[in-house]
Formats: sequence, structure tokens, C-alpha cells
Amino acid sequence: MVSGTGVRASRALVECVPNFSEGTRPEVMDAIQLAAEEVQGARVLDRHADATHNRMVLTIAGTPGPVAEAVFRSVARAAALIDLNAHRGVHPRIGATDVVPFVPLGATSMQVCVELAVRVGMRIGAELDLPVYLYADAARSGGRRRLPDIRKGEYERLKASMGVDPALAPDFGPARVGPAGATAVGARRPLVAYNVTLASSNLGLARAIARDIRESNGGLPAVQARGFATGDPNVVQVSMNLLDTRRTPMSLVFERIREAAARQGVAVLESELVGLAPAEAVVDVARQSLQFGQLTASSVLETHLLEQALG
Amino acid sequence: MVSGTGVRASRALVECVPNFSEGTRPEVMDAIQLAAEEVQGARVLDRHADATHNRMVLTIAGTPGPVAEAVFRSVARAAALIDLNAHRGVHPRIGATDVVPFVPLGATSMQVCVELAVRVGMRIGAELDLPVYLYADAARSGGRRRLPDIRKGEYERLKASMGVDPALAPDFGPARVGPAGATAVGARRPLVAYNVTLASSNLGLARAIARDIRESNGGLPAVQARGFATGDPNVVQVSMNLLDTRRTPMSLVFERIREAAARQGVAVLESELVGLAPAEAVVDVARQSLQFGQLTASSVLETHLLEQALG
Repeated sequence: MVSGTGVRASRALVECVPNFSEGTRPEVMDAIQLAAEEVQGARVLDRHADATHNRMVLTIAGTPGPVAEAVFRSVARAAALIDLNAHRGVHPRIGATDVVPFVPLGATSMQVCVELAVRVGMRIGAELDLPVYLYADAARSGGRRRLPDIRKGEYERLKASMGVDPALAPDFGPARVGPAGATAVGARRPLVAYNVTLASSNLGLARAIARDIRESNGGLPAVQARGFATGDPNVVQVSMNLLDTRRTPMSLVFERIREAAARQGVAVLESELVGLAPAEAVVDVARQSLQFGQLTASSVLETHLLEQALG
Repeated sequence: MVSGTGVRASRALVECVPNFSEGTRPEVMDAIQLAAEEVQGARVLDRHADATHNRMVLTIAGTPGPVAEAVFRSVARAAALIDLNAHRGVHPRIGATDVVPFVPLGATSMQVCVELAVRVGMRIGAELDLPVYLYADAARSGGRRRLPDIRKGEYERLKASMGVDPALAPDFGPARVGPAGATAVGARRPLVAYNVTLASSNLGLARAIARDIRESNGGLPAVQARGFATGDPNVVQVSMNLLDTRRTPMSLVFERIREAAARQGVAVLESELVGLAPAEAVVDVARQSLQFGQLTASSVLETHLLEQALG
């Protein structure tokens, strides 16, 4: 008899973590969250707000349709309630809803999230009459892949120059900003914050390895890396953001660092994860180490249950 | 700014897959499922029924309290609607609710599930007046660890001998069976069905390796193993059930097989998972391969989201 948790076709499952430019007024934050929670099939799993940044992040997960609807409604609510002309905070921002990243979960493909970004971006442009920039994996030009490039000069620059500077023309919606500003909508992989600790006091070594492996120096794709001292004077750390573990898996990063350290007679002490890693990043390591022919994030019981719970 | 998916204390999360002796009458199956679904906070994620086995399995997940309540209510409903004297099916069974296994998810400890089994078992005995046997990790004697031992002779044997044979005395409830029979309530790890394929036509080698590694021959703890031919005459397979990957992780099993095959000049072709593996089993491999100091199932994004979705 097949158990009830047997493998079935897995549903597409996505996470969206929209950032709103409101971190102080609880009634405004509540209203934005409630707008998302009205939609059946989308789950608001977390809310994080910060008064200094004057910013709120919702974590919404579920199948693509309900998540798209929930995000759209929260963006509409934020546009009605937040005036960027009165917004101050230490975090750069261009709009009431500043950024809307769609992230694939489980074995869901990036293509699903790119399509979601385009669909939601078009709706925000057409129905809310707000300018939208597609970014990250949904970007339509190299200059719009990175958020810092889109956010340069923030809301105030868009307000002053959007109508006259063709470089600021949005992908969707009007080429002018009102009080709700503009929104960056995109698709990206979950980021993995990964550190490797070396049994050495040689900070120069950690920095040299970091320089060698980071993408900006022609190293490993989708890897940001820095060398750090730690609280323990006998160990140093290579600290990384892995932006896409499909392109550069954790095991490859580990192996490169291990080899580079070994050439200087230094051993790796341990790996460390800061926060969470997507199932896929962990499954990749097992696939490589144990020579799995087929092993995906959907092979993980908890991922499968999440797909059922949110599907 | 910390993202909304930052790590927080994780909630205990469990799965329960109760098996009911009804696989034909939809109205009875619906009623049992509805009894579980009445409980807020428990999610019925799957229902699998089979007319030949005349049996239904529900997959219920959530935090311990709601799951325990949902399971208890479905057991009560089954006891009212199923008469074992009229039940026929190819699968052995002792009761209307035949078996209730609690399974830890994420980083939840087995102890949580053992306590749940005891608590729910006591309630079934006291409130429903049904005999209950604790089994697997919740068993109170070696003879009750394995389900086949408890099920020997099935309902009919219990009906004939429970009152007179002290070996059949239940852990909870009366030492007599009515039409609803008895129920085995226990706690166990999720099972991992794991195969390793060898680049050899030598079936004897696969069988010899299986013999060496299985627990029943003094091999690796919590490992069942057999050697098999496959559809491809050039490869053979060591096919395993890993009953507890905490005691014997996949990487250890793989390494043992790889070494034993290498001694005969045979290479491992690939690993294969049949069905699903708990996040913990996959995380264990990454922890070992990349020397993670700390890495648990709760470090996996999807596990964390599941804890939030069901918590």
C-alpha cells in the first residue's frame, strides 16, 4: 500500500517578499498586510518592520495565482496610504511599495517567477497607473539587473527627472511619479549567506581567497565574498553571499576554498550558514556527494508537505 | 535590514499518518476525514485509500496539540462507523483505526512524538474504551516494537484470546475487543527508501553487500537491505530502507557500499531515492560533506516556511 506521502506531481510554489516604505504607523502596516490576507490560497507567513529604515517586509507564500493577487492588493493599498514626499528612513527607496521580489520555492523554476513578475508588473502599471521597473532575473536590460542601479537617487531623482531622462523610462506604467513613487518588480533565487572558517590567524589569506572566488574579480558566478577576522584570534573567515546556488553550488565554493587554504597549509575548520538555505541548495550537496542521479528539492518530505499545505 | 524569513525559534512540527480499516465506503471515509478537519491548526494534507486493502491513510500535519486532537477525533469517528467483524481486505489489521504513527518533521525531536503517542493512546483507552498497544519508538517492551508482531493473528486473534492471554494485555484501555478492535499507537522516524546502483552484472555482489550492511546480520543500525537485479543486465542494486537516518545517515551507508564494491573492483553508478526523504536526512549529508558545525532541518527555508504555515 502506498503511503499518503507518496510522491505526486508537485505544485509550483513561490514566495514573495514585498518591501513597503512604512515602518512606523501600525494602522498603515496592518492595512497593507490585511489586503494581502484577504486572498485565499496565499499565506502571509511573516512581517518584519523597522522604524529606522521606515520599512516593512511581508513574506507571502503559496501557489503563483493567489500570491500574485495578494501582492497586487497589498501594492494597491500601499499606494493609497503612503506618500513618498513625507517618507524618511535610512534605507534607499523609490516607492510606497519599493521592491517586489518573487522567489521560487521547492523545485519551482525561475521561469515561473519571471512570468509572475511580468504579470504583476503589468497590472501595477495598467491598473494602479504606477511606473514599474523589472529587475534581477526579470530585468530586460543589464542596467536594471541590480537594485542599487535602479534605486540610485531614489524617489527624489525619479520625481525630478523621470519625464525628461529616457534612461529612467519604466518597463510598465506612466513615465511620471506621483506620491506613491515607482516599484521594482523582479524574480530572484533565495540568497544563501554562507561562511567558511579557516584554522588560521592569517586575515590576508581569507581576504586573498575571497578576492579570488568572487564574481566581480572574475571568480565564481553569483558569488560575493569578503575575508573577515572573527572573535577568535586563531581563526579567520571567508564570508559569502551565494546569489544563485544553481550556478555555483555550496559544494563547489567549499572545495575551492578548501584547496586554496590547503595550498598555504591551512585547514578548513567548518562551514556555517547565516539564516536559511533553500532546500535546493542543500539537496545539491547531497546529490553531488552521494552521486544521486535524480534528487530535487521536491524529494524532501518537508518541501512536499509545504507544497500541499500552501497548494 | 533583516529579511522577513530570518531564523526564529522553530515550532515543533509533527506528521501523523493514521491507517483506518475502510477503503470502500466513501461516506465512511469522508466522515473520518471530516472529524480530523474540524480541528483548527491541524491540516489533512493527503488521503490515500485502496479498496483491495480496504484501508485508508490520512496524512495530518501541524503542531502537536492540534494534530493530537484531530487524530483522536478521527479515531473516535472510525470506532463508531467500522465493524471489524464485517471487514475484509488483504492488509493485516487489528482495529477500525489500525495504526497511528506520529512522525517528527523538521528539527522536531522524537521525544515529542513519543509523548504524543502516549497521550493519544491514553485518551483512546480511557475515553473510547478501546485497547491500545504502544509500538515502535513508543513501545514499552521489545516485543511491541514491530507492527507485524502486534498484528500477528489480526483482529480475530485478539477477539478470541485477549481476555485470556496475558501477552496480549494492552498498554491502555480494556483487555477485550469490541467491533472497533484495538489500535497500535506509536512514534517513528520517516523511512528513507534508498538504493545504490553498482556498475556490475554481479547479483551475488549486491546480495553480499546487502547481507553485510543490514542490521539483522549485525551490520548498520536501522538498515534493512537486499540485493536486486535491475532492468539493465549490466547493473545491480543494493536496495534499502533506512529506518532512522539519525542513527545511520545516508552518507555512511553510501560509503560502506562504495568501499565494499571497490574491493571487488566495482564502481558505484548512482544513488536513488524512492519517494521522499526528510529534510534532516539530506541536511545530514551536507553537514558531513561541507563540515557544517551547525546545520539542522530548520536551516532549510522550506522547512521553516512549513513550520510557519502549519504552526
